[in-house]
Amino acid sequence: MSDDQTTQTPNASNTMWGGRFERGPAEIMERINASIDFDRKLYAQDIQGSKAHAQMLVATGILTNEDGASIAAGLDRVKAEIEQGSFAFRKDREDIHLNIEARLAELIGPAAGRLHTARSRNDQVATDFRLWVRDAIDRLSALTMGLVAALLDKAATHAEVIMPGFTHLQVAQPITFGHHLMAYVAMLERDLGRLRDARVRLNECPLGAAALAGTSFPIDRHLTAKALGFDRPTANSLDSVSSRDFALEYLAAASILGVHLSRLAEELVIWTSAQFRFVTLTDAFTTGSSIMPQKRNPDAAELSRAKVGRIIGALNTLLIVMKGLPLAYAKDMQEDKEPTFDAADAIELVVAAMAGMVADLTPNDVALHAAAGSGFSTATDLADWLVRTLNLPFREAHHVTGRIVKLAETRGITLDALSLADMQGIEPRISADVFAVLSVENSVASRVSFGGTAPSGVKTQIAAARARLGL
Amino acid sequence: MSDDQTTQTPNASNTMWGGRFERGPAEIMERINASIDFDRKLYAQDIQGSKAHAQMLVATGILTNEDGASIAAGLDRVKAEIEQGSFAFRKDREDIHLNIEARLAELIGPAAGRLHTARSRNDQVATDFRLWVRDAIDRLSALTMGLVAALLDKAATHAEVIMPGFTHLQVAQPITFGHHLMAYVAMLERDLGRLRDARVRLNECPLGAAALAGTSFPIDRHLTAKALGFDRPTANSLDSVSSRDFALEYLAAASILGVHLSRLAEELVIWTSAQFRFVTLTDAFTTGSSIMPQKRNPDAAELSRAKVGRIIGALNTLLIVMKGLPLAYAKDMQEDKEPTFDAADAIELVVAAMAGMVADLTPNDVALHAAAGSGFSTATDLADWLVRTLNLPFREAHHVTGRIVKLAETRGITLDALSLADMQGIEPRISADVFAVLSVENSVASRVSFGGTAPSGVKTQIAAARARLGL
Amino acid sequence: MSDDQTTQTPNASNTMWGGRFERGPAEIMERINASIDFDRKLYAQDIQGSKAHAQMLVATGILTNEDGASIAAGLDRVKAEIEQGSFAFRKDREDIHLNIEARLAELIGPAAGRLHTARSRNDQVATDFRLWVRDAIDRLSALTMGLVAALLDKAATHAEVIMPGFTHLQVAQPITFGHHLMAYVAMLERDLGRLRDARVRLNECPLGAAALAGTSFPIDRHLTAKALGFDRPTANSLDSVSSRDFALEYLAAASILGVHLSRLAEELVIWTSAQFRFVTLTDAFTTGSSIMPQKRNPDAAELSRAKVGRIIGALNTLLIVMKGLPLAYAKDMQEDKEPTFDAADAIELVVAAMAGMVADLTPNDVALHAAAGSGFSTATDLADWLVRTLNLPFREAHHVTGRIVKLAETRGITLDALSLADMQGIEPRISADVFAVLSVENSVASRVSFGGTAPSGVKTQIAAARARLGL
Amino acid sequence: MSDDQTTQTPNASNTMWGGRFERGPAEIMERINASIDFDRKLYAQDIQGSKAHAQMLVATGILTNEDGASIAAGLDRVKAEIEQGSFAFRKDREDIHLNIEARLAELIGPAAGRLHTARSRNDQVATDFRLWVRDAIDRLSALTMGLVAALLDKAATHAEVIMPGFTHLQVAQPITFGHHLMAYVAMLERDLGRLRDARVRLNECPLGAAALAGTSFPIDRHLTAKALGFDRPTANSLDSVSSRDFALEYLAAASILGVHLSRLAEELVIWTSAQFRFVTLTDAFTTGSSIMPQKRNPDAAELSRAKVGRIIGALNTLLIVMKGLPLAYAKDMQEDKEPTFDAADAIELVVAAMAGMVADLTPNDVALHAAAGSGFSTATDLADWLVRTLNLPFREAHHVTGRIVKLAETRGITLDALSLADMQGIEPRISADVFAVLSVENSVASRVSFGGTAPSGVKTQIAAARARLGL
Repeated sequence: MSDDQTTQTPNASNTMWGGRFERGPAEIMERINASIDFDRKLYAQDIQGSKAHAQMLVATGILTNEDGASIAAGLDRVKAEIEQGSFAFRKDREDIHLNIEARLAELIGPAAGRLHTARSRNDQVATDFRLWVRDAIDRLSALTMGLVAALLDKAATHAEVIMPGFTHLQVAQPITFGHHLMAYVAMLERDLGRLRDARVRLNECPLGAAALAGTSFPIDRHLTAKALGFDRPTANSLDSVSSRDFALEYLAAASILGVHLSRLAEELVIWTSAQFRFVTLTDAFTTGSSIMPQKRNPDAAELSRAKVGRIIGALNTLLIVMKGLPLAYAKDMQEDKEPTFDAADAIELVVAAMAGMVADLTPNDVALHAAAGSGFSTATDLADWLVRTLNLPFREAHHVTGRIVKLAETRGITLDALSLADMQGIEPRISADVFAVLSVENSVASRVSFGGTAPSGVKTQIAAARARLGL
Repeated sequence: MSDDQTTQTPNASNTMWGGRFERGPAEIMERINASIDFDRKLYAQDIQGSKAHAQMLVATGILTNEDGASIAAGLDRVKAEIEQGSFAFRKDREDIHLNIEARLAELIGPAAGRLHTARSRNDQVATDFRLWVRDAIDRLSALTMGLVAALLDKAATHAEVIMPGFTHLQVAQPITFGHHLMAYVAMLERDLGRLRDARVRLNECPLGAAALAGTSFPIDRHLTAKALGFDRPTANSLDSVSSRDFALEYLAAASILGVHLSRLAEELVIWTSAQFRFVTLTDAFTTGSSIMPQKRNPDAAELSRAKVGRIIGALNTLLIVMKGLPLAYAKDMQEDKEPTFDAADAIELVVAAMAGMVADLTPNDVALHAAAGSGFSTATDLADWLVRTLNLPFREAHHVTGRIVKLAETRGITLDALSLADMQGIEPRISADVFAVLSVENSVASRVSFGGTAPSGVKTQIAAARARLGL
Repeated sequence: MSDDQTTQTPNASNTMWGGRFERGPAEIMERINASIDFDRKLYAQDIQGSKAHAQMLVATGILTNEDGASIAAGLDRVKAEIEQGSFAFRKDREDIHLNIEARLAELIGPAAGRLHTARSRNDQVATDFRLWVRDAIDRLSALTMGLVAALLDKAATHAEVIMPGFTHLQVAQPITFGHHLMAYVAMLERDLGRLRDARVRLNECPLGAAALAGTSFPIDRHLTAKALGFDRPTANSLDSVSSRDFALEYLAAASILGVHLSRLAEELVIWTSAQFRFVTLTDAFTTGSSIMPQKRNPDAAELSRAKVGRIIGALNTLLIVMKGLPLAYAKDMQEDKEPTFDAADAIELVVAAMAGMVADLTPNDVALHAAAGSGFSTATDLADWLVRTLNLPFREAHHVTGRIVKLAETRGITLDALSLADMQGIEPRISADVFAVLSVENSVASRVSFGGTAPSGVKTQIAAARARLGL
Repeated sequence: MSDDQTTQTPNASNTMWGGRFERGPAEIMERINASIDFDRKLYAQDIQGSKAHAQMLVATGILTNEDGASIAAGLDRVKAEIEQGSFAFRKDREDIHLNIEARLAELIGPAAGRLHTARSRNDQVATDFRLWVRDAIDRLSALTMGLVAALLDKAATHAEVIMPGFTHLQVAQPITFGHHLMAYVAMLERDLGRLRDARVRLNECPLGAAALAGTSFPIDRHLTAKALGFDRPTANSLDSVSSRDFALEYLAAASILGVHLSRLAEELVIWTSAQFRFVTLTDAFTTGSSIMPQKRNPDAAELSRAKVGRIIGALNTLLIVMKGLPLAYAKDMQEDKEPTFDAADAIELVVAAMAGMVADLTPNDVALHAAAGSGFSTATDLADWLVRTLNLPFREAHHVTGRIVKLAETRGITLDALSLADMQGIEPRISADVFAVLSVENSVASRVSFGGTAPSGVKTQIAAARARLGL
């Protein structure tokens, strides 16, 4: 900084920095530039990557066995210090890479300086972050499997409990509680598939791309890749340090998964209202009121619903950050980590909370059954019977059904409380067989088409899902 | 609407509808509810789905052969009318499904009424939209393959052209033009993978889920699935009509692809500036000025860059629309189509435009080479030589290099213009071999690590990509 | 385009354009570049701006009276042609500006060529778009006033209807229906304020900024500004053609307004469910089922809720498009219009639909009252009575209340059905006065703090809002 | 939690929580529910609000003077403990409100229990958060004023430095450096206006709304409002605890401001490239390379550009969180704070960094001037001269200019290097006066229209802005 500017600064700090950045430019630059406050989360991956790199340098003769051993031991000690809380993170050492490297130099001396051979911070951070996202995918997949297991258990237990199926939040047709939960299993299986595909695509090792152009050292990138559990090295060094689509794909998968769970969360909020009372959650996932004992606020469901907004926000953020960046590395890309870390925390919490709530909830069979029978919910069964048995065209069957429902409505009774004569007054060919389709039990039992709500079918769905998922 | 309200309306229309909705509630409801203005795009898929459904109804004995034939012929005629422009789309028939069904009834009479047996608009629209998104994935994959082909051709032609590799838009190390383009091939290969995975996951048939619960008709969903090219029917009827993750996944893949292309677009804008002049685009993809003949505005690149914002916006929109919706079908889901249609148009246009620009561009070899040699871009090569040849630790090698570069800077010459004596004045062990790494040609040629920028490596990358992609 | 490329094209069109862009580069460029398909919406504003510009050119002596008159007449005729549908929009004339100018030249000859003096397309489109957004703000403000009027009317009519106030969708305290609606009036007043502020900030005229640098013609920008209803000309010519924050601010205001309305929409969906039955909407804003007469799907509410996702998506899109664009005009900015047009359509439709639904709805007093009394909703009134009358500390009052509520719960009765002796068994100092606060009527009536739910206060709120808004 | 579930938990913790939530449901609920980790940021506002509330309770006789004094002293002590770092934040006390209240009870005993009279956590947190956002607006406004001051200083110093004005990143017309910077001043003035308007709209006090319905205690909300610097109490108690548009409006204003600064950041990145070299930044805002002395990576500009993605992401997040929430308070709203806090940190840092960079940068006059004269940038001046002096119609003037430029291009010289005879060969009426408009100096000086780039005009702009802003 020039003298001229130095003298300006005190003055400037009053008007320009508004008291918030008292040391002027230097403080601002440190504050905007340093990443150690958040990228310390990568310490384990950074050390894992460095050990693999050093091992490869030894294997290819670029590093001596002695230096290699010294580096490995030093890195282990750094890791121990971090995990024991005795490591002094320093902001003037900017990021996790420099913090670890500088500490390593303190511990093992000049050999530390050889670790960075044939490597740069660009491929190093790309590797660390990939490893971190890979771990996040694995954690999220495991948690999601746990949620699926909880859904399958609950669906199996309540496969025959009858409840209303809704469209537009209006009662449409009776279904079973197990069938409803299995809809979420179907969604989550696709979510698991998205995570699996993302992991496969991510699983290439950028280490050895160096700054951007590769290196003239005789390194063996296949060796490093293998040591870190990657399937192969990345194919283009420039792409290796420039791309973050592995994080974007993870965030997209998390967002879609989150949207699915936000729907179940919304249902839990509605279902636990006094007006619905479809399910009960225990104190484990609700909060109460000290003076209103019946009040069980579904806080965990609400927070799960809300946190999905944040995950979508993180996806949006990283898409915006990456848009329009020329190759190769740009400092903008330092902003890739915080949204990803934040979204990972949020989605893991949401999945765990939903698993907890699913295991915790008790369906209120009586209320569900009563609601299922309301609103002439078997009217479509009647119409289908007319088509099937009397061979009425679909549209005419609807017309007849409408008149019969209207009759029941006028009388204030349900469809199966009408007499045969009542119905024959509207369509003479109706026979007593019709009653077989008018109860919610029979309605549900009849929907045996593949994937349908019949308890027999739901059990088949459950068994098939268990088989597919090994649960 | 009650009398009471009717009399209120004229008055209300002045204050409440502000002159924009002159017919009051009726007009508003039609305007907000009708989807025919945009879902007519689904006509081909709707007819395709109906034909498969009718065929299955015949095969399972639910429909007579005669009715089946009549329906098939009628649907063909409807399709012809639409494609010839003689079909009269009617807003009072709300959507594409009712428009087609009503026209079918006009053409073939009561048999049309049997087509809707064991089906509802909910599974019908889910099927139509899946078919449409599947087609969009296929179109986008084909266009992306075209872009990859253009990149491979251009990379092969210019595999040895030397240009600067940038970090922070500052010259960092020399690379080759082919290497730079191959970075995009690597990104696009992953994009193609995402589209492929999305297609596999989407490819299950919701038809037969009926309104939400399945049906009691003895349908064969496997038959319909097969007829429509789906791998199998969906496993849960409720999920079938409630989920749109197939569209979300397509939009996410399109957004990430778009982000990749926005980076190339940004580079084209910068590279065609008078200050860079790295590449030239012809009039085919630029617009000129009637009075400034040298001005070639890179409009197509700018529009490509901008349209990515719109694709991200569409992804965001659909995530928001779906968040928190209770099962099963909600009318909110009618808002799934417009963002998807709009994003598909945009991304297809962007990919095609980028393919055109890549084929169209000519790198300016002289300017690229000159820029590659500026800024002591081979300083890292010198440092690596010191490590490799003199066995200096990495950090010490950097120190020596820094002093040599400073000397060259003071003299105003490039590194390879220094004499051996000059360099030995700083580090006596330096030998004449060092000059082998100081030219940009040698620098580039030396980076033979897997995925590196050496022309030999770039050619290997190109050949491998061609083999993987069958191009 | 070079010969070389021409010969490549036929071949390329197969692989690269995938059959979608049959004419190759030329078609792609036209498709991505032309804006006439959407910017024709600006025709009225474009003509308005041109007339004001011509008038100023005459006033400053740059144009003759004769030319000025000829241009004005010609522009009027163009406008008439467009509004009568006889204007032939041509894609090869790219945009609305060239379409109008070329037609003007056909109509009036060489004088048309003088209209563009001291103007460029850059300041022209900036002016057109500002005028359009200003009109959109005015339309939206008028529609929002209509919605506020409907809310005020409905609130006044039902100021005393008692309903439950919810937190977490759990019954918390009794409130009145009027009070609930007035919460939306409060939100909408702030929304109107945001629109008003945006309009003031937007209302500066960019015309005369020319391409970006201003002009050497002796124009009078204050005159043009005044003629177009702007408060003044913009202060910096570069900013004038580069900025679109006026559109961003409009989209932000529309998004926030939309979020408010999405909450009312969600309530309408929940309130019209069979389980709540809090309000009834007529057929004007619901759709039915041909066979389930009681089913009234709240389609308009669901679509209103969903369309907000789209408005947020549009805001997001334009923020992304504008981010990181160097000054001055970039072609990216052509993507400013479609999201803005789309969002304007959506928000206007949503506001109108909500106004319609508010006017249309009938609260179900009985169900609301019953729900308001459930869940010991006056427990806080009891606690407050203990604090106020017996001077118990707040936390101790809560403890006593909890025990009394538990007693009522055990007995299966409401609080006001307990005897005085029952209550005195828990806290001997409780007197018969306490019953005055235990009924929902008294609870509501007692909340007379400023802005509270007491009917008297609600009426005051209504009167104050009417006065503020002139309604 | 039931016994049954307790016994399930150990097992479940393996499969369902994936090792991440070892204590099962209890840990999950605490982790998802507790907000103390982030809402501790509100401590000062919470104490400020509580003191005002207590003061009002005393003034209205609800609380004794003694209790009031005890509470005030206790709160001061709590504040001191927090600021000295001796306060023990406890997660089991969930949030900042309970942490402070519980500590207050430890310090002053039962009187602490009276503080919560006529208040609930709902209006308390609404007040705290409003106060925090108001402070954030004030900080951001001050920082933005600092940036404007830096821009004005720099613009004044370089008001006559000639540089190219760009469209499409192609040289279009010469402008001055001061004019370019003043474009940002114009944007920032509107940004300041948005912040000002948001503050006015926000500045109503929700305290006293209680849980949602108001209170029966004889409180004086005007008194509390005044004590906290609010203009008045909010008008509707339900709205008071349900709305967060004050935060949304702040985030929208911050996003638009951020977009403006991202444009300047992009320019700084491009301008500091070796190819442009338009400006130089010192080490204060760049990072270097240990071996490439000329490399100055514009990290602060890149990070500023990137952080805007995060601010837009935060706006998007909160819009999504709030969308579709039924009134009144829902736990979803707890997710309002983190995105707002994060965006505030980011935008404050970006504004400060931009102010620093603007003060720090030195324009490279020689490079700017050379670039300004390239590309026949005064061609429009020539065309305008033909219109103005020879009265050619605009389109014909363009035609003549195009031919003259082509001649200069063929000769490889600039326009002002052509001879008069050369030009008269194309248009005989051209006189020697024409040379007055062909130099960049004259071009710039001639654009004296209001807001144009003439140095005289730029100085007027600067003076006017200083007057408006009091700088």
